[in-house]
Amino acid sequence: MTEKMNGAESLVHTLIAAGIDTVFANPGTSEMHFVAALDRIPGIRCVLCLHENVVTGAADAYWRMTGKPAATLLHCAPGLANGLANLHNAMRARSAIVNIVGDQATYHRPLDAVLTNDTEGWARPVSGFVRTAATAARVGADAAAAIEAARTYPGQIATLILPADTAWDAGGVVAQAALPAPAPHANVHAVEVAARLLRSGAPTMLLLGGAALMEGPLWLAHDIAQATGAKMLGPVSPARVARGRGRVPLMRIPYPIDMALESLKGIKNLILVGTTEPVAFFAYPGKPGYLYPEDCTVHVLARPDEDGPGALATLAKMLGVAEGCGGPRFRGDDEKGCGVDEKGCGDDEKKPGDDEKKRGDDEKKRGDDNLPVVATGAITPEKLAQSLAALMPEDAIIVDEAISYGRGFYPYTFNAPKHDWVQLTGGAIGAGLPMATGAAIGAPDRRVIVLQADGSGMYTVQALWTQAREKLNVTNIILSNRKYAILLHELANVGANPGPTALNMLDLSNPDLNWVQLSEGMGVPAAQAASMDELNALLKASVERPGPFLIELLV
Amino acid sequence: MTEKMNGAESLVHTLIAAGIDTVFANPGTSEMHFVAALDRIPGIRCVLCLHENVVTGAADAYWRMTGKPAATLLHCAPGLANGLANLHNAMRARSAIVNIVGDQATYHRPLDAVLTNDTEGWARPVSGFVRTAATAARVGADAAAAIEAARTYPGQIATLILPADTAWDAGGVVAQAALPAPAPHANVHAVEVAARLLRSGAPTMLLLGGAALMEGPLWLAHDIAQATGAKMLGPVSPARVARGRGRVPLMRIPYPIDMALESLKGIKNLILVGTTEPVAFFAYPGKPGYLYPEDCTVHVLARPDEDGPGALATLAKMLGVAEGCGGPRFRGDDEKGCGVDEKGCGDDEKKPGDDEKKRGDDEKKRGDDNLPVVATGAITPEKLAQSLAALMPEDAIIVDEAISYGRGFYPYTFNAPKHDWVQLTGGAIGAGLPMATGAAIGAPDRRVIVLQADGSGMYTVQALWTQAREKLNVTNIILSNRKYAILLHELANVGANPGPTALNMLDLSNPDLNWVQLSEGMGVPAAQAASMDELNALLKASVERPGPFLIELLV
Repeated sequence: MTEKMNGAESLVHTLIAAGIDTVFANPGTSEMHFVAALDRIPGIRCVLCLHENVVTGAADAYWRMTGKPAATLLHCAPGLANGLANLHNAMRARSAIVNIVGDQATYHRPLDAVLTNDTEGWARPVSGFVRTAATAARVGADAAAAIEAARTYPGQIATLILPADTAWDAGGVVAQAALPAPAPHANVHAVEVAARLLRSGAPTMLLLGGAALMEGPLWLAHDIAQATGAKMLGPVSPARVARGRGRVPLMRIPYPIDMALESLKGIKNLILVGTTEPVAFFAYPGKPGYLYPEDCTVHVLARPDEDGPGALATLAKMLGVAEGCGGPRFRGDDEKGCGVDEKGCGDDEKKPGDDEKKRGDDEKKRGDDNLPVVATGAITPEKLAQSLAALMPEDAIIVDEAISYGRGFYPYTFNAPKHDWVQLTGGAIGAGLPMATGAAIGAPDRRVIVLQADGSGMYTVQALWTQAREKLNVTNIILSNRKYAILLHELANVGANPGPTALNMLDLSNPDLNWVQLSEGMGVPAAQAASMDELNALLKASVERPGPFLIELLV
Repeated sequence: MTEKMNGAESLVHTLIAAGIDTVFANPGTSEMHFVAALDRIPGIRCVLCLHENVVTGAADAYWRMTGKPAATLLHCAPGLANGLANLHNAMRARSAIVNIVGDQATYHRPLDAVLTNDTEGWARPVSGFVRTAATAARVGADAAAAIEAARTYPGQIATLILPADTAWDAGGVVAQAALPAPAPHANVHAVEVAARLLRSGAPTMLLLGGAALMEGPLWLAHDIAQATGAKMLGPVSPARVARGRGRVPLMRIPYPIDMALESLKGIKNLILVGTTEPVAFFAYPGKPGYLYPEDCTVHVLARPDEDGPGALATLAKMLGVAEGCGGPRFRGDDEKGCGVDEKGCGDDEKKPGDDEKKRGDDEKKRGDDNLPVVATGAITPEKLAQSLAALMPEDAIIVDEAISYGRGFYPYTFNAPKHDWVQLTGGAIGAGLPMATGAAIGAPDRRVIVLQADGSGMYTVQALWTQAREKLNVTNIILSNRKYAILLHELANVGANPGPTALNMLDLSNPDLNWVQLSEGMGVPAAQAASMDELNALLKASVERPGPFLIELLV
């Protein structure tokens, strides 16, 4: 077999050998041998997307929900460029993606054919690893290296560029990627310092990111905070948070600069767990860039590439937080040293119901007894969040690109059934619909509900077609305010009293977008809702029925 | 005024002073001061697009039709990334664009806020000029330098990056960009060599690109070819060609590799006029990369950055091609030395009818007497081209992203009314609908007809909304074959007998896209046509009525 195998076939075999079973694809001519190899060799599900930014956003969310990297299949240079925005978001989420990009044949590149451009150069700013295969014989080994790089804790984008001749030449050799290593331990001295800061009595905050936002570590952090009087927050844009009844109701740093500064006011010690220093999303004239007070000490308990949950467990022990060993999920599990999830943000192998079995009576004590009920009447952001909390099924995945309209959703959904909240991480809008698509591929038994601002949704509206084709369990809620609302707010911040030119550039009416037509044009059934009652009925029907649906919410 | 002006205001004044009056915009937060300045200072038309790749594709075609650069207004890093594919096409078209990209404030960039990425690095592969403004006081001068760079013959992309603080800080100074210089003369020795080759009697071909594809230079080339027995061709992907009755019926090098090789077979001397050596679009196993025979000599008469029309005029004189002085347009104009158009590919100030006045009886002699008539019955590519030739109005602009379906359109439209043919130049699909949008903004009195493959059209479908908002005279013909037909062809070339996985990745049905719903969802009225008769009726009605329309042609 080996002597007859071409480079593309060795690539497919190497992916399969590493457990990679999903490729999000938008192929072009230079990828035809890769397509042919995927066709001949069973074992990989190929999901066609009609735009590269759907491919990359889907691969990002697939990782966030499964902890397994998907591969992409992108066309050379400008094809990759089309997918960079969601690769940027994936990079900020620290997601693992094996990003495979075709390219001109090695010997054709010097001829500068019109579709030639700098594939490597465009890939580099979003990739932790970039390699262009030189020969068919090297493709397998290069792919294994890319897979290993992608799975480096907590995850990164590994771009493998495949010149056409390295795909079609004979001589491919299958390689075996090493298994992913566990997360590196945080520095024990960092844990000691954190314990001292928490015991000091000075106002201290735990800022949690990455794997520390899963259910168990959040309880660890919660109990540490309870025992020491510390505060807890999440970053503005976490990749994935475990939420709902029986879980820790963690707030995020707010997006608006003044609210963000207020949220850290008076803090003297800021302890970072799996995240970086909080900074303003943008600079604003006369406002600080760092969000913590000038006299605040920043202490890194665990870097994003270190084991944050493990560091919290060690810290809890050091502080003698007896009750704090892992929250409901891990209660009664002390023998195993608070066995926090070592798989990073992907815990796909946890079965729905596992947690409940362990939890017992604790849930009622910790949960919110006020079960959510649907809201009625005119639509407001708070009511939307309330109905969402009431109607989302257990283990739902909420994908949040609601932008300005969704800023108040968080507190109204703490008492929802257990769910994961997956949101835009890098500020490059157009992630919501693709992420919903990839999350649904990764977690087919869970309902995905995407809260999608209309202006942002238009960037990657093509994702709806893949939802229809793959019959994905996604409920798309489009928040149709028909303007770039966040920019109107920002323009007001600038102090401008906008005239018609500015308003025209921030206004999405004239003509109004009709999302029902857009959605049905791509095969996803859809309806408008102009009141909470209409929304409630549509949302309830949608989550009870398999397949995708779109609700255009006229807000 | 100066001491109160901020950087953004100095930018707007500098653009206006240089005659730039159109901005294609997709703004974000870091561009709010630029938006506010555009709002306060009259003189620039701002055209909102719902995706950055619509912005950049529109700016490309605006240049191709007007010869004046538009400016863009793009959001930082990932915003620019979203527009790179059509910047790539614009680079290959050698279009001039003043590409303005916002960015993080200079002092905020080191904080690595989540929306930060390598704006300069992403811009460089498509730009002839990249500069990041350092202070508000420098913005005007930097903008003038960018405008001058963009207008360097024949045109290039000049990227000006505007950190937020350089826009909002006071101290802006307006600068005056230098007027564009005329095209540099080709080397006179190159003209002498070309004359010798043409006189040699060996099989010789003129390969024409850039400004040599305008009406006058094409006649010059035609007459040189007639006098010397040389052949003429255009490149595979020219940016703009003057075509129709009374103009030279120039063929392009075909896209398929075997046909491309055939088109240059037997040529001993290849003379390049404003274009580069012809190479295969992609490499194919066992096929050559250069399209000309191994024993062919390649001679550069004029590089793309030299005055191709001027070189043709000098060459015609040197060869004593008496009748060849400019064709109908310039006939009787010998006193002025065959005054070829010195404005490059933009000749917006030529009024419809100017040519006719000069042409007189020559037109009948040169034109095709077989006036086109509409085709009826079942739809074929040839019939579509024939009906297009019969129904397009005088001075139409045909935007061609028909891909595989449109390869045979050329010969069937030689006898159409005079028109310009504008096509995908860089192979990065998703240019058609944006280019149609920008062409219609640049040439509001002309009907734009875009021949758009369905798969490619989906990449930038958002362009339709801008057509609706701006009430543009665009007829969008979607060639709805519901597959990536070109890739099925390429897969067959690979020798694969495709199975369901491959077919699934190249098939756009399941579900079918409904282009009528997509179009109406963005405010562009639309209808389906399943026969030539239905197409004829819809096309005729559309070109007679102002505003946009979309025809989904079921092919």
